[in-house]
Amino acid sequence: MANNLLEGKRGIISGALDENSIAWKVALKAKEQGASFVLTNAPIALRMGAINKLAEQCNAEIIPADATSVEDIENLFSKSTEVLGGKLDFVLHSIGMSPNVRKGKDYGDLNYDWMLKSMDISAISFHKMMAVAEKQDAMNEWGSILALSYIAAQRTFPDYSDMAQAKAMLESIARSYGERFARLKNVRVNTISQSPTMTTAGSGVGGFDVFMDYADKMSPLGNASADACADYCVSMFSDLTRMVTMQNLMHDGGFSSSGITERLVEQLKK
Amino acid sequence: MANNLLEGKRGIISGALDENSIAWKVALKAKEQGASFVLTNAPIALRMGAINKLAEQCNAEIIPADATSVEDIENLFSKSTEVLGGKLDFVLHSIGMSPNVRKGKDYGDLNYDWMLKSMDISAISFHKMMAVAEKQDAMNEWGSILALSYIAAQRTFPDYSDMAQAKAMLESIARSYGERFARLKNVRVNTISQSPTMTTAGSGVGGFDVFMDYADKMSPLGNASADACADYCVSMFSDLTRMVTMQNLMHDGGFSSSGITERLVEQLKK
Amino acid sequence: MANNLLEGKRGIISGALDENSIAWKVALKAKEQGASFVLTNAPIALRMGAINKLAEQCNAEIIPADATSVEDIENLFSKSTEVLGGKLDFVLHSIGMSPNVRKGKDYGDLNYDWMLKSMDISAISFHKMMAVAEKQDAMNEWGSILALSYIAAQRTFPDYSDMAQAKAMLESIARSYGERFARLKNVRVNTISQSPTMTTAGSGVGGFDVFMDYADKMSPLGNASADACADYCVSMFSDLTRMVTMQNLMHDGGFSSSGITERLVEQLKK
Amino acid sequence: MANNLLEGKRGIISGALDENSIAWKVALKAKEQGASFVLTNAPIALRMGAINKLAEQCNAEIIPADATSVEDIENLFSKSTEVLGGKLDFVLHSIGMSPNVRKGKDYGDLNYDWMLKSMDISAISFHKMMAVAEKQDAMNEWGSILALSYIAAQRTFPDYSDMAQAKAMLESIARSYGERFARLKNVRVNTISQSPTMTTAGSGVGGFDVFMDYADKMSPLGNASADACADYCVSMFSDLTRMVTMQNLMHDGGFSSSGITERLVEQLKK
Repeated sequence: MANNLLEGKRGIISGALDENSIAWKVALKAKEQGASFVLTNAPIALRMGAINKLAEQCNAEIIPADATSVEDIENLFSKSTEVLGGKLDFVLHSIGMSPNVRKGKDYGDLNYDWMLKSMDISAISFHKMMAVAEKQDAMNEWGSILALSYIAAQRTFPDYSDMAQAKAMLESIARSYGERFARLKNVRVNTISQSPTMTTAGSGVGGFDVFMDYADKMSPLGNASADACADYCVSMFSDLTRMVTMQNLMHDGGFSSSGITERLVEQLKK
Repeated sequence: MANNLLEGKRGIISGALDENSIAWKVALKAKEQGASFVLTNAPIALRMGAINKLAEQCNAEIIPADATSVEDIENLFSKSTEVLGGKLDFVLHSIGMSPNVRKGKDYGDLNYDWMLKSMDISAISFHKMMAVAEKQDAMNEWGSILALSYIAAQRTFPDYSDMAQAKAMLESIARSYGERFARLKNVRVNTISQSPTMTTAGSGVGGFDVFMDYADKMSPLGNASADACADYCVSMFSDLTRMVTMQNLMHDGGFSSSGITERLVEQLKK
Repeated sequence: MANNLLEGKRGIISGALDENSIAWKVALKAKEQGASFVLTNAPIALRMGAINKLAEQCNAEIIPADATSVEDIENLFSKSTEVLGGKLDFVLHSIGMSPNVRKGKDYGDLNYDWMLKSMDISAISFHKMMAVAEKQDAMNEWGSILALSYIAAQRTFPDYSDMAQAKAMLESIARSYGERFARLKNVRVNTISQSPTMTTAGSGVGGFDVFMDYADKMSPLGNASADACADYCVSMFSDLTRMVTMQNLMHDGGFSSSGITERLVEQLKK
Repeated sequence: MANNLLEGKRGIISGALDENSIAWKVALKAKEQGASFVLTNAPIALRMGAINKLAEQCNAEIIPADATSVEDIENLFSKSTEVLGGKLDFVLHSIGMSPNVRKGKDYGDLNYDWMLKSMDISAISFHKMMAVAEKQDAMNEWGSILALSYIAAQRTFPDYSDMAQAKAMLESIARSYGERFARLKNVRVNTISQSPTMTTAGSGVGGFDVFMDYADKMSPLGNASADACADYCVSMFSDLTRMVTMQNLMHDGGFSSSGITERLVEQLKK
């Protein structure tokens, strides 16, 4: 579909690692809808090189930024408005990493320095991006800022470990900064709580196959794909959703409202 | 904006009374986006005649239906698919009325026959529409069904009386039938919880001006207009939101996530 | 435990059918804690006779009342305050029945008269009890009114059918009347959302064993028993919880906050 | 009331600063109900000396601990079980501080080191206490762990700044560790979301009087006092609430479920 929904809009898309990334698909669809944007990721992630292909396809510049560094983010926003030739209409935050999960620390035995690192990378980075955007006056009126979250912010998924706290914090920042940015510039801030997704990042979580299948069976429409998520992001960046703000939006095929399903009962009966 | 987002889609839009109605604006925007649809309302409401103007503008047929009558709804759906030349892709339920509110009954002194009437008109009618749609196999795969709700389903607004129960029930029906319709036909069902709106219906509620002003001050983006709500409905009918189901979606300028605001404090300080 | 927590308090306990009933256990524990109360149930339910044993144990009078009949409820409340020698401090609403569930109607093919009946019996009866209590000025200041609910009010459990709507409505009534009763008499109104329970009523729901086991595995503390629920009711009737009102309180061993558990994963892996 | 509800139970109560503290009142009521416990607070807070009076009244030992120091917490728990002569049945976490709020930093201009400090003091300290309790096997089966929270975890109160994130994180930790502790030891973990309270800590927040009055008017039962909160904590430490876990429990006179009230409308009309 090419509906010119984002015609003339400028943005920043973070977190595109490879073709499985939600952010990657957002970039493709945003391009298709007429947007121009900058791609960003951590310098380490960029070294893998896959993103160059995307940048070419989208005619987008890549500006590296460590999401925990205010300086890097300042550079990202000032360069972006320069490169794109004006203020921004949308920003996608798709950044998350927990050293405790990476290194297999048990939740009862967290490394607390790493826990702070998880918060800094996965949640506070969202605050930093918005604070920089505000200080540089980089957002257009009625712009839209989105971050990707997960239902672990509300319910326990033991393998998700301290990322549960990071997502709870991320959604809280969306509300707090959403209030502020609404007041100052009519900018809306929301999180999308996406189904578990077979991204390169997601596949790191243990027992993921059993879990994916469970989530699929518990979701009346099945798990939402990264592709569908990208479509939803486009709708949230478009002018059709201007008055939706400070919300956590479930994009999960119904998982969050589902108590049990026949498909799961069938399996449990075995 | 005309983005052909609903190109080729067919639907039913209920509840357009006059130019202030949210449903009226949904009709105009759906038309603009390429949809074809049928308009419906209660025979009494139609007698006021304003809807003829809308029907003309939208090149839409009007099919009267009492939303509490399964027979009328059967006629509505079978005629609609006939007139539109195929199965439906979207349905808007924008129907609500409480005889207890109309006649000023105190919440401590409800007429219980009227309370059942409120539920039948405002909530069960939604179930009836979906049950008929299912039985007639009138929905296309990946169709979208929406009902308009209000945050009184979650929090108390004393003047709203038994409509609070009606909206709680409506949202519950959206979840229950949403699970079913997802399973059967990949059809999604959601409610949009809209800011208080100065419709002809809304203006019947007492002390509405003070309340509207309060809601506006408590909403960081201000109260969402009927127009903005129509845009949001379009996004929910489009293919961009296929995996969102069984949700109650706040369209309220942030009201639901707002605990207090500076604008309200300013007024309270006086 | 006998802590005299309800010393001197008077109440009405509805819904004790037999020894498996939550209400039965509430009666025993309320007695143990020093309360005096009246037992009530529908005339048909009373004919089974088991309740006489409970009445004897608790030195409680039985006053039959059809929960849909305002007249019966008026008689119940006026007799109760007379028999107990003063105004009431607590009321337990433990009443629910769906003819559609009983008679195995599919959710896509509900009998709508029965659906209204489900609402009347399971939800509106709660409003009727409170409206009568208010009109007779039958509640003491700082009294506590409770109804038993289920998480089907928030999430879909397909076999639960239109009882999902009844529970959503019940919880909504708790909020609406809770606001009113707080304002008028400092009386609090809450619902307890209890784990699925092997009561005589509960066991009517289809596939209940598989479901009970699933709920147990998804609840980190396991399913809450009827006994534990009765303890919780006592705490909510006591003066320790005076400022808790208009809440739906999860009593479910953690089910509502649990996304997945190791115990479930173990089973799913098989 | 002295009902011996906590007879024979041992615990740790943190956060008692002076007579206005909720924790102070919890200590008095826990004592009254037969509990024995240790008091703890940060060394700096203890230097103010008021807590000695409480310790005397409660016949409780004071063990200083910096809540961010795992070492201090290890000492706290090992000494506590030693002093009290056995494992613990309850723990109260009443700890919160934001350097950003203290030093009046604007939410758009947070000091991020301080933000991490806010999280460490106000939220991660809760994880540290539970991890130490687990490692030392210091909790009895069916013990109860509580932390005090605030509705800023769900809705925006601009002056609350990054404490909103701290409370969101705190509640998330309660869920995550609650799942774990239920599984391991049948220990429950909950947060109580308390009305704004005129504690020495609370009174630091700007415009507090106007806000307290607003919250009171929006709460059908009025703001819950520190005293009432202490009663509620007692009920949550007692055996009456054994199956309640991973919940955030609103103790707010109905504020969280209240959309508008007549009392507020009266003021707004002026």
